[in-house]
Amino acid sequence: MTDDGTTLAGRGEAGLLGDVLAAYRDLPTDGVLVGPGDDTALLAVRRGAVLATTDTVVRDRDWRDEWSSAQDVGIKVVTQNLADLAAMGGRGTGLLVALAAPPTLPMDWARGLSEGIATAAGMAGVPVLGGDVSSTASDAVMVAVTALGELADGVQEPVLRGGVRPGDVLAVSGPLGRSGAGLALLEGGASVGRDEQERRLLDHHRRPVVDLEQGPVAARAGATAMIDVSDGLVRDSDRVARAGGVTLVLDRGALERLAAQLVPALPASGALRQVLAGGEEHELLATFPAASAVPAGWTVLGQAVAADGADGPPGVRLDGSRLDPATGGWDHFGG
Amino acid sequence: MTDDGTTLAGRGEAGLLGDVLAAYRDLPTDGVLVGPGDDTALLAVRRGAVLATTDTVVRDRDWRDEWSSAQDVGIKVVTQNLADLAAMGGRGTGLLVALAAPPTLPMDWARGLSEGIATAAGMAGVPVLGGDVSSTASDAVMVAVTALGELADGVQEPVLRGGVRPGDVLAVSGPLGRSGAGLALLEGGASVGRDEQERRLLDHHRRPVVDLEQGPVAARAGATAMIDVSDGLVRDSDRVARAGGVTLVLDRGALERLAAQLVPALPASGALRQVLAGGEEHELLATFPAASAVPAGWTVLGQAVAADGADGPPGVRLDGSRLDPATGGWDHFGG
Repeated sequence: MTDDGTTLAGRGEAGLLGDVLAAYRDLPTDGVLVGPGDDTALLAVRRGAVLATTDTVVRDRDWRDEWSSAQDVGIKVVTQNLADLAAMGGRGTGLLVALAAPPTLPMDWARGLSEGIATAAGMAGVPVLGGDVSSTASDAVMVAVTALGELADGVQEPVLRGGVRPGDVLAVSGPLGRSGAGLALLEGGASVGRDEQERRLLDHHRRPVVDLEQGPVAARAGATAMIDVSDGLVRDSDRVARAGGVTLVLDRGALERLAAQLVPALPASGALRQVLAGGEEHELLATFPAASAVPAGWTVLGQAVAADGADGPPGVRLDGSRLDPATGGWDHFGG
Repeated sequence: MTDDGTTLAGRGEAGLLGDVLAAYRDLPTDGVLVGPGDDTALLAVRRGAVLATTDTVVRDRDWRDEWSSAQDVGIKVVTQNLADLAAMGGRGTGLLVALAAPPTLPMDWARGLSEGIATAAGMAGVPVLGGDVSSTASDAVMVAVTALGELADGVQEPVLRGGVRPGDVLAVSGPLGRSGAGLALLEGGASVGRDEQERRLLDHHRRPVVDLEQGPVAARAGATAMIDVSDGLVRDSDRVARAGGVTLVLDRGALERLAAQLVPALPASGALRQVLAGGEEHELLATFPAASAVPAGWTVLGQAVAADGADGPPGVRLDGSRLDPATGGWDHFGG
């Protein structure tokens, strides 16, 4: 739709809800026993338990209007919620969307947000069950999404962070550092990519799309632990290591091959930093009992070893040193 | 806890999460297969389907710090979510809590919020399954709660808004107008009640507590439609009337008896206005196929009649006139 200059206040709550629900009209309705419009939704649960997670994005913290469209924000907030479900071996079955925004927010932005949410939900085959609209007194804009889901077919137990054991192999479902590289390009003034590589990196920062089915694939392959890369490889690996009481030893060669995919958009040192510390990637990071169990298309990154006293507490190591999760290890790479 | 002057930024995300989870430690854990701390929660669902709703509160819109404590805000946001479940004939089985706040927010406030959430969740026997913490760039503070639930024992179908039929009796589970009266007292400068009545009204505005079990009670009694009074009797009745295609005729005598409970804290005309238009009450409003079906303790407010062309479209009527949901009807009462 084109910008007609209307704000939320001008359109009114009923008009806003009508526009929002129109954007969700073509989403699947499998399992939706009661949809938007009543006091609550009612969603069928086939497998005796529901997965539930919530993730919020805030303007000027999680996105900047000059760099990201409303559609981008909608895709991003849905992807990060669905990636959390995938990281349990699950798939989405429903979304709840809460928007808090000032009355001066352009309706065009609110419609764009709904279109982005519908795009990402549609790719995953997930309905929007309901939501809430609130006004803010300041100019804050916040989108809180709750994703419900269930364990995918063939997955008997959720894959938790703490199931890793010494000897397990660490692997990732796709590239790393793209979102961080895209952000670095934006901060460097390159909001329009100068070539196909830069455009892909910018796209992944603005509207990350990952193959969420790889979560169930990993679970069926026997993944012992899993998490999605939302805060960077080192921080998220460190969470797995500490939850499982092991040390994860990263393989420099594997990291450098991933970093090479970000060059020449970034210089080599910056590329390695983004592979280690770049967040909002949302690829899946998992451990497997053997290299032969790692699914096709995944990249082996290292191995779990027993955390013994000599090497300090559980954590992530590279080239014999522990990587600090607070910095994503980048102090070790010339800052 | 006492205020130690620490802010969110000073305490850090890990410290904040630790304090928040400590507040929830004594809540029941029935059905919680995976709780806070992993990518998602996993909640058992006994009855084949999950109820889901989300409701957000925003500082300076839904509460003012000079009038409401953090504990009040926590109780209020949980109550309004659980009341939505009750209005389907359901009960809560889990909560997700998202807080977005500036780094300067006092930790004491965040702890108080969690204590209030724990208080209301504890009264309802509902665990906190997980959540999210985000920082805001402005001074906005927002709390988004998602409540999951299931139909209560003995309730076979959700009670929707649209099930009302001509001849049904309209009733409410408790008093009306208390929250609106409490707000009117605050706006009049009476932040400390001058007597027991005023204190009760102020309490219900700040931290509404309702008997959520009345939702399942009504459902088992054969309620044909139900909603909780969040936006005022007229607006919420109007929703039921339009959803069911009927006219709901209110009984002036019943309204005046409810209004009398707000006098002398409010003058009689103001009291009737609050009964009609006062929001955030969260008592349950339901229709029943006969007066004999109305549960003990509920108050009959009127009756559903066929909406015929002569009286205009479906809506709410009093003394022969349609009440405007946009104003809660108060234009008809001398404004």
